[in-house]
Amino acid sequence: MDFLQHIQRPALLLDEVRCRANIRRMAEKARLSKVVFRPHFKSHQSATIGEWFREEGVSSITVSSVEMAGYFADAGWTDITVAFPVNLREMDEIDRLAGRIRLNLLVNDPGSLLLLEDRLKNQVGFFVEIDTGYHRSGIAPEHIPLMDQLVRQSGKSRKLHFRGFLSHFGESYLVRGQEKVRGIYGTGVSALRAVRNSSLLFQEGLISIGDTPCCSVMNEFPGVDEIRPGNFLFYDVMQLNIGACESAQIAICLVVPVVEVHPDRGEAIVYGGAVHLSKDHIAYNGEKNFGLVVRLTCSGWSDPLPGCAVTAITQEHGILRMDPLTLPTFRPGDLIGILPVHACLTADAMKHYITLGGKPIPMFTGV
Amino acid sequence: MDFLQHIQRPALLLDEVRCRANIRRMAEKARLSKVVFRPHFKSHQSATIGEWFREEGVSSITVSSVEMAGYFADAGWTDITVAFPVNLREMDEIDRLAGRIRLNLLVNDPGSLLLLEDRLKNQVGFFVEIDTGYHRSGIAPEHIPLMDQLVRQSGKSRKLHFRGFLSHFGESYLVRGQEKVRGIYGTGVSALRAVRNSSLLFQEGLISIGDTPCCSVMNEFPGVDEIRPGNFLFYDVMQLNIGACESAQIAICLVVPVVEVHPDRGEAIVYGGAVHLSKDHIAYNGEKNFGLVVRLTCSGWSDPLPGCAVTAITQEHGILRMDPLTLPTFRPGDLIGILPVHACLTADAMKHYITLGGKPIPMFTGV
Repeated sequence: MDFLQHIQRPALLLDEVRCRANIRRMAEKARLSKVVFRPHFKSHQSATIGEWFREEGVSSITVSSVEMAGYFADAGWTDITVAFPVNLREMDEIDRLAGRIRLNLLVNDPGSLLLLEDRLKNQVGFFVEIDTGYHRSGIAPEHIPLMDQLVRQSGKSRKLHFRGFLSHFGESYLVRGQEKVRGIYGTGVSALRAVRNSSLLFQEGLISIGDTPCCSVMNEFPGVDEIRPGNFLFYDVMQLNIGACESAQIAICLVVPVVEVHPDRGEAIVYGGAVHLSKDHIAYNGEKNFGLVVRLTCSGWSDPLPGCAVTAITQEHGILRMDPLTLPTFRPGDLIGILPVHACLTADAMKHYITLGGKPIPMFTGV
Repeated sequence: MDFLQHIQRPALLLDEVRCRANIRRMAEKARLSKVVFRPHFKSHQSATIGEWFREEGVSSITVSSVEMAGYFADAGWTDITVAFPVNLREMDEIDRLAGRIRLNLLVNDPGSLLLLEDRLKNQVGFFVEIDTGYHRSGIAPEHIPLMDQLVRQSGKSRKLHFRGFLSHFGESYLVRGQEKVRGIYGTGVSALRAVRNSSLLFQEGLISIGDTPCCSVMNEFPGVDEIRPGNFLFYDVMQLNIGACESAQIAICLVVPVVEVHPDRGEAIVYGGAVHLSKDHIAYNGEKNFGLVVRLTCSGWSDPLPGCAVTAITQEHGILRMDPLTLPTFRPGDLIGILPVHACLTADAMKHYITLGGKPIPMFTGV
């Protein structure tokens, strides 16, 4: 990777081969399971990377904001679900978008549905989000009358069309081990199917689920109609810790300059901090972890270096605890790699990628 | 604030009156103490806000990266310290900058000093960073021979000029209460003075210190020559928790749309998450806190609402625990305010401000 000699500041390397393999594997599993693959594009936010999905037969996508939907509509995507509770303050933008593409929203309360009905001129689909245990957004499965009200109300609408029930099993991020992740899939899907079976009105509704841990560890997707994983195209230390990927599947790496080496502390200081990685961290091997450390190679990066970890970060500083044999091989001015804890937030912070061939890949940077 | 009706997405409000008062107070304290006030501009990263400092007599500033130094040099600042261990990979950019302005670097190892001497064409000043207890970057106070080597080496240089000893008492962020913060100031300054007194070679060196908690709680700055606080112009929940400010001094507030109200859970969900606030959090009143909740008013925002807090965030979602009497006063589509835990990271994530008069204030967005 000759272009690395020109790297001056933190840069986000993307291994296109690994990334495309991750995309292909998930697309293939979805095909075999006969479920719709509607990947979440908030993880990469890049029209260029979007094309890699298209090459695997993907034609419908998920995003997390109306402005991101606009960006991907401009890039030629015509079937987009905004998997975030509808933001009524973006009514005009939603309406314009609904006039251009097949747009799905999340609508979880009757008041919002009424307002949309009143104000939109164009057709939109909507999912009702079910909170099967993550307790973020969505309706608890026991609130059947509320769902019933929403679906009945939309039955009278000429603009809003009920598409089904959507859930994000975010609790899969809080466990470790594939068995536990499979358990979350089973429990969540059962809850969604019980909801759908609770009323004849709901029968036509799709069941759409979405988290990367579940979609990664499941080989088939019994009981669902659609999957919306996002992070799996990159993976990261969090997914590694959960057991959702191998380290050799992690497709992005933050390259940072070493600025200090402290043999007495067994630490190196790098130019790479919260504004590059984000401040997400996990407990990894019993300690607070902000990333794993790798060595850059001719063709990419090494496996995580044993005994090394990012143990703290501030705005621009990263503190790397280093193995005593590894530390002396680095000095100020060298580059070192960090596998991020949470790839989506690192990508969002960095705002662009560089492939291992040195090619820059732009991403959405806001409106 | 009529312009709020046009706010569609998360936006960062800046109370210019509070912000200017924070700047004036610190400038005045520095004047009375006869120390140089070299504020850290990484907190706001805005040339416009930089002018508010100039109006208070500020002529020298601190930044955390070479590219940020370039941005402020373009804005007319001619005396800049990059308070980050020198990044040797930016040698050419450093040299260009040193040809335009009075530039100070941090140089903490002899190898880097040699390289700078060899490669720079222009004059630069440098500070030696002393790690008085934070254990991030810098040299431990007991490593006098290393400092001696650096200063001796620079004595033979025609380009690198020793300016003094610089420290960031970051451990002040880890305590609560003004007494403890004052203790950190005392211990840190004593260590720096002991370093300076340890060699005749060091006598001309300035003592520069920098953290917002210490600079906020101290009324005078005995024993130092320069202060470099940054965050104090905004303050935030972290500073409030430390005891470094009052809530009425907090000058920025993230405005977010409410998207869900859950009376049964006592929670509201907002469009505002990690990509807006950053994922920094603190323990506040015994629970994990990602921000305090305020009500927007005609002229700004209220005091923090009792019993309300941001208890969790993901990429775009914020979960607000709400007081039972307060929650019913909000519904989807309303705006609500969040005082950030860490103002610098929120500003960096948002990339621009809006004053209470609705005026947009741009900031540095990278090269």
